[in-house]
Amino acid sequence: MEHDITLSLEDAQSLSQRILRKTGFSEGHVEAITRSMVAAQRDECHSHGLYRLLGIVETARMGGLDPQAVPEVIDQAPGIVKVDAHYGSSLLAFEQGLAPLQEKAERNGIAVLMINHCFHFSALWSEVEALSARGLAGLAMNPTHAFVAPAGGVRALLGTNPFAFSWPRPGGTPYTFDFATSVVARGEIELHRRAGNAIPDDWALDDQGQPTTEATAALAGAMLPFGGHKGSALSTMIELLAGPLIGDALSHETQAANEDGTGQPCHGELVMALSPRAFLGEQSEAGLLHAEKLFEEILGQGARLPSKRRFEARARSLTSGVSIPAALYRDLKALVDDNTPRPHA
Amino acid sequence: MEHDITLSLEDAQSLSQRILRKTGFSEGHVEAITRSMVAAQRDECHSHGLYRLLGIVETARMGGLDPQAVPEVIDQAPGIVKVDAHYGSSLLAFEQGLAPLQEKAERNGIAVLMINHCFHFSALWSEVEALSARGLAGLAMNPTHAFVAPAGGVRALLGTNPFAFSWPRPGGTPYTFDFATSVVARGEIELHRRAGNAIPDDWALDDQGQPTTEATAALAGAMLPFGGHKGSALSTMIELLAGPLIGDALSHETQAANEDGTGQPCHGELVMALSPRAFLGEQSEAGLLHAEKLFEEILGQGARLPSKRRFEARARSLTSGVSIPAALYRDLKALVDDNTPRPHA
Repeated sequence: MEHDITLSLEDAQSLSQRILRKTGFSEGHVEAITRSMVAAQRDECHSHGLYRLLGIVETARMGGLDPQAVPEVIDQAPGIVKVDAHYGSSLLAFEQGLAPLQEKAERNGIAVLMINHCFHFSALWSEVEALSARGLAGLAMNPTHAFVAPAGGVRALLGTNPFAFSWPRPGGTPYTFDFATSVVARGEIELHRRAGNAIPDDWALDDQGQPTTEATAALAGAMLPFGGHKGSALSTMIELLAGPLIGDALSHETQAANEDGTGQPCHGELVMALSPRAFLGEQSEAGLLHAEKLFEEILGQGARLPSKRRFEARARSLTSGVSIPAALYRDLKALVDDNTPRPHA
Repeated sequence: MEHDITLSLEDAQSLSQRILRKTGFSEGHVEAITRSMVAAQRDECHSHGLYRLLGIVETARMGGLDPQAVPEVIDQAPGIVKVDAHYGSSLLAFEQGLAPLQEKAERNGIAVLMINHCFHFSALWSEVEALSARGLAGLAMNPTHAFVAPAGGVRALLGTNPFAFSWPRPGGTPYTFDFATSVVARGEIELHRRAGNAIPDDWALDDQGQPTTEATAALAGAMLPFGGHKGSALSTMIELLAGPLIGDALSHETQAANEDGTGQPCHGELVMALSPRAFLGEQSEAGLLHAEKLFEEILGQGARLPSKRRFEARARSLTSGVSIPAALYRDLKALVDDNTPRPHA
C-alpha cells in the first residue's frame, strides 16, 4: 500500500492553478475554482477537494463548460442580484455576486443572489461561510440531477438538492450546516457497491420502485429523500426556488439537456443573505450573543455542532498541510503534463 | 356513542366570534382568530380548529395574552416589516403585516415579516397560503417550546419548530407544506399514551436521555428531531432566524418566561415572501408553468402532493359544513354562556 502525499496549502493551490490554466480556464476561473477546491481539501472534504479537479477538467474538455465564460452581473431588483454564469463555473459567478449581495442585504435586511446557467461542482458551505464571515446569515440551495424519488414515488425525479446555512458567531467558527436532502450521499452507495456490502433498506428503490438492499440495484433505481415526506417536501421547495423561480432547470431536466446523457451539472443556484444589523439595529451584537446560549445548551448536553469535524480538520491543515492518495496525486500531475489541446484557447 | 355536531361555516364562524367577544378580545382579534380557526376546521385540521379556542380562552384568562393588544407595524428596513404584537395573538399581527410585506416583496424581490412578542397557537399553512394567494412564494417558521433534543443530545432544548412553504399554482390549489421538525407531533405521543400503546423507539428519549418506547416516559423526556442530524440542523436554523435574529425568544426560554411553568406559547415568528414577478419579469408566468412540470412528474409516478387531504377536506366543508364532537360543541357553548369576568374589560 502506497503512502499518502502531503502538500502544503501553497503547493495544493499551485497544483490546482497549473491544472486549470493548462485546461484553458481564464485567470478569474482559475482563482475562484482553486480557492474552493483548496478550501475543501483543507477541511478534509475529499470528494469536493483536489479530487474534484479530475471531473472539472473532463467537463471542460467535453465542451459543455466554458472555461473562458465571463459572468454577467445584473441588478435584477433592489433585493436581487442576478449573475448569468454563461455556462462557466458557479464559483466565479458567486464571487462576483457576493459584494452586491452583501450591499443589498445590509440595506434591505434580506437579499438574494440568483446564479443562472452555471456548472456546479462545489460544496455550498464555502459560500454560506463567505456570508457569515461578513456578519450575515446565509442560506444556499441548488437542484442537481434526478437521483431521488419523491416520498411515495417510484422513480428518480428530485435532485440530491443540498441545503446549506451559516450563522456568524462572535470570535469563533460559524454555525454551519450543508446537507444533501437524500438519505445519504450518492457516493456512499457507490462505496457500498465497491465493497460488496448491502445497504439499509430505507436508502433507495430499485428500478421497479421497490426498496432494495443491493447497492447496484439502488444506483440503477432511485435514492430516497431523508426524513420521509418532510425531506421530500424540502427538496421539492429547493427545486422550485432554485429552478423555476430563477428561470432555470429542474433536476430532471439537467440530465436530459446533455446529449450523451452523462448529465453534466448545469443548472441554477439560489443564495439568501440576512443582515442582523438591519434586523436588530443597535441590538445586533446582543442578538448574536443571545444565539450563543443555544450553542452552549447544545454542547452542554454532549451533542455536537455541525461542521465540527471540518473545523478541526481546517485547524490541522493550516499547520500541517493536506494529504491526498498517491494515485490521485499522479492523476493530477498527469493533467499538468498533458498535451491535449485546450478546447477554448 | 354520541354523534358529531355538524355546523355550517357561518355557524362555526359565529360561534368562534361569540366565544372570543365574551372573553374580551377586541374586534380585530375576534376576526383574525376566527378566520384562522374556521379555516383550520374547514380543512379538517382538528387540533388547530375550533378545539383550539379552549386553549386560547384559557391563555387569555390567565392574563398572559392581552386580548385587547394593538399590533404596532414598523418599517424596520426596505426589506423588513416588523410587527410588535405587544403580547396579543400572532394572527392579527400577521394580517396587519401582510400588505406591507407584499408591497416590499414585489418591489425588492424578497422581503421578511418579523412578528415579535406574540402568542402563537395557529397553523402556519394559512399564512403561507395567504402569500401564495397573492402570487408570492412564502416561507414561515417559529420556535415553540423546548420539547425536542438536538441530534446526539439527551435533553429537550429545541422546539417542535414548524416550517411551512407555499408556492402559487396557476388555476389550482397551491403547493403547500407545513411540518413540525420533530419526528411526530407531540399530540401523536399523547394519543399513544391514552391508548396504552408503545411508540417506535426513534420518536423520543426518556428523562435519562435513553431511547424509549413508553409514551409516558417520552412525554417526561424529549422528542427527537425528524431526519436525525439534518432535521436537528434545520430546527436549529429556525431557532436562530425566528429567535435571536429578530430579537425574540429561543424555545427553551419560552417556558421559563412563564411563572407557573405551563409554558405559554409566547415568542416570535419569521415569514419570508418571494415575488416571481420580481425574479422573472415578463417570464414570471412561464416560470410558474415550468414549475407545473415538477408537480405533473410527482403525480405521474403515483406520489401525492402535500396538503392533498386538506384540500379535499376544504372542498367537502365548503358544501357540507364542518363536524365536531358533541362534547367539544358543549364545551364551546359553555364558553359563550360563561359569566366569568373579562380579564381586560
